[in-house]
Amino acid sequence: MKSDLDALMQSRSLDAMIVLGNAEHNPPMYYLTGGGHVNKAVLIKKRGEAPVLYCNAMERDEAEKSGLKVIPLRTGAMEDLAKRPKEILTECGITAGRVGMFGHTDLGMALHIAERIKAELPELELVGENQEDSIFMYAMESKDEREVERIRKVGKVTAAVVDKVREYLTSRDVREDEVLLKEDGSPLTVGDVHSKIRLWTSELGAELPSGFIFAVGRDAGVPHSSGNPADLMRLGQTIVFDFYPAEAGGGYYYDFTRTWSLGYAAPETQKLFDEVKTVYEKVVENIDMNAAFKDYQKFVCDAFNANGHKTPMHTEGVLTEGYVHSLGHGLGLNLHESWSRHTASDDNRLKPGAVFTIEPGLYYPEQGMGFRIEDSYWMRPDGSVEKLADYPYDFVLPMKKWKKR
Amino acid sequence: MKSDLDALMQSRSLDAMIVLGNAEHNPPMYYLTGGGHVNKAVLIKKRGEAPVLYCNAMERDEAEKSGLKVIPLRTGAMEDLAKRPKEILTECGITAGRVGMFGHTDLGMALHIAERIKAELPELELVGENQEDSIFMYAMESKDEREVERIRKVGKVTAAVVDKVREYLTSRDVREDEVLLKEDGSPLTVGDVHSKIRLWTSELGAELPSGFIFAVGRDAGVPHSSGNPADLMRLGQTIVFDFYPAEAGGGYYYDFTRTWSLGYAAPETQKLFDEVKTVYEKVVENIDMNAAFKDYQKFVCDAFNANGHKTPMHTEGVLTEGYVHSLGHGLGLNLHESWSRHTASDDNRLKPGAVFTIEPGLYYPEQGMGFRIEDSYWMRPDGSVEKLADYPYDFVLPMKKWKKR
Repeated sequence: MKSDLDALMQSRSLDAMIVLGNAEHNPPMYYLTGGGHVNKAVLIKKRGEAPVLYCNAMERDEAEKSGLKVIPLRTGAMEDLAKRPKEILTECGITAGRVGMFGHTDLGMALHIAERIKAELPELELVGENQEDSIFMYAMESKDEREVERIRKVGKVTAAVVDKVREYLTSRDVREDEVLLKEDGSPLTVGDVHSKIRLWTSELGAELPSGFIFAVGRDAGVPHSSGNPADLMRLGQTIVFDFYPAEAGGGYYYDFTRTWSLGYAAPETQKLFDEVKTVYEKVVENIDMNAAFKDYQKFVCDAFNANGHKTPMHTEGVLTEGYVHSLGHGLGLNLHESWSRHTASDDNRLKPGAVFTIEPGLYYPEQGMGFRIEDSYWMRPDGSVEKLADYPYDFVLPMKKWKKR
Repeated sequence: MKSDLDALMQSRSLDAMIVLGNAEHNPPMYYLTGGGHVNKAVLIKKRGEAPVLYCNAMERDEAEKSGLKVIPLRTGAMEDLAKRPKEILTECGITAGRVGMFGHTDLGMALHIAERIKAELPELELVGENQEDSIFMYAMESKDEREVERIRKVGKVTAAVVDKVREYLTSRDVREDEVLLKEDGSPLTVGDVHSKIRLWTSELGAELPSGFIFAVGRDAGVPHSSGNPADLMRLGQTIVFDFYPAEAGGGYYYDFTRTWSLGYAAPETQKLFDEVKTVYEKVVENIDMNAAFKDYQKFVCDAFNANGHKTPMHTEGVLTEGYVHSLGHGLGLNLHESWSRHTASDDNRLKPGAVFTIEPGLYYPEQGMGFRIEDSYWMRPDGSVEKLADYPYDFVLPMKKWKKR
């Protein structure tokens, strides 16, 4: 919760924080300002005090929507901080102590500002925190009903777009060689589907700040391949559709994956999908408040390993097939929150208020296939678990105008 | 040009550079990799040598599209660099010297990496450059035909979306109180127009990574107000439509502004628009290769000042009315390139290959109006100047279903 920030600053011995960058697409700044059209701004917060937002005077109206104290400047605020760090920080009552620097912004400029601060205020120690372990990740971990309601809404958009894609694909005509056809009779490509996904997401008012994955065949077997636009859409190939839109302007994300095969699936493909689904269901049935997330990762690795798949817990080195990633991650203003912490340590447990994904998968790129199932969940403060958007898990999607011979 | 980077590194005594972050929406990384779905990557380039791209093994396919040497890692590359900086940098032949850090990424993590590098390689000096003055801004300044062709294409999309908005607005029914109506007879709001703009941009395959401005009345008089969604669209009010879409995935931007008044304009409003247009035209007629950009800013300030407007050159302190900003900026993978340099110094001249905006404006928020005209230009290597997208400059847009009484 935002209200935890002062205690978190105390626990890290931070006397103040400087947050740099735009209000949009910049999670720490968005968290404190609520977003809006405010660019290259500087937010300064002393521990125990309210934040002050420095911005270009041209953006004062937008900045004031944050409800924070706004100080308009004649030039960009980051530029101004680089020019007169002592004056600005002294104005905020900060001349010494440990000061955390945060924000998603231009690194060269930020390091330049850091150097200028050190030069003018040598008593002040600037601190950078590993993003995964930063006080913002801890504060953001526990989400309230107001935040979750926003995530649920993005979840609704997610399911609606996925359903439009499914409806579009299954309504296609199919050529004799099992290639799907567009309305004009030409072959449907992965790139065509990508365009539809972008358009429908925009129509429903969401954005794709981190892109999305709609990958087929071999690409479905490479977990983060976004899909090759030139490939033709064919029946009987595994499709991994990993879809993570966000509220417009850099707000909350949803995260979701389904694996499909159009028309039919080879028996060995169906078998691997069923394995992933069984593991997914077992994990979801057993989600418990305060359980260590790494125990679920271990459960999944053991289950896949027992069926002969490689896993990160049973194999050394870089993995390119089998179960090659971790089971999930926190989700919010960042697509990935507290990811490594979730799988790393006994202490990292599913706290009340956590929003997180569960996403086991299996990947065999050389055999031209991959599988993943993913939903986003909320650990309600009462200990019950809520799936934040519903959508069916079917693997083989029947084609409306095609029948298997 | 990209080929200038080694010479620029030499001029700043940089022995190497480390670029951090995603390949998309991160200009230095995009410039060197060409974009793609590669996240939290690390690019290391020794002066005079080809760059090496470290990425998560899951993203190796995407990374290889860059044509660079790719080193896949088991975890995220930024995380990995924080864990074993000495090993990775030694692998690249970098153990001492001055090393620039670049990229648009999480600042906490970047500072954390910087601290870890300093701890393990004390002989190595890390350098942050003021973004406006960084070697990337210099390298990017001169664009080749291939880059400009991409900007022209975004310019075409820009003009097409603007034209759809104009057509939509001028086709509306108008209520007796001069409020525009939607298809269903309810009042048209600024927010409705914002939604249309987003949708049409997406339909045409571009993105709005920095948002856009469609602001009416008082908001049009605040240069960076994005417009109040709840306001009703009315006749006779100034509309500032500043539109800066980019290629999908964080590529090249276009930048464009028109000011409109629907149906009619009050004489004093028309007069101010005409002033802006006259100044705009005079500047454009006189663009010369190797001219100092600040001379144009001076020309505009003097012209507006002669008509009784405040300007940054004739008024101290924060300006909220009159001509309150600078005349233009470079444009490319960044929406604003070399901005302050353009207006700051005699040495900053319109180099061959520069892409830049010309955008004079006048703002009177308390009187509920603002005006700006902007186009993007290319200084061709032969010294001729090309406007990169054409669009009419009309101020008063006649309404198809409404006549002034």
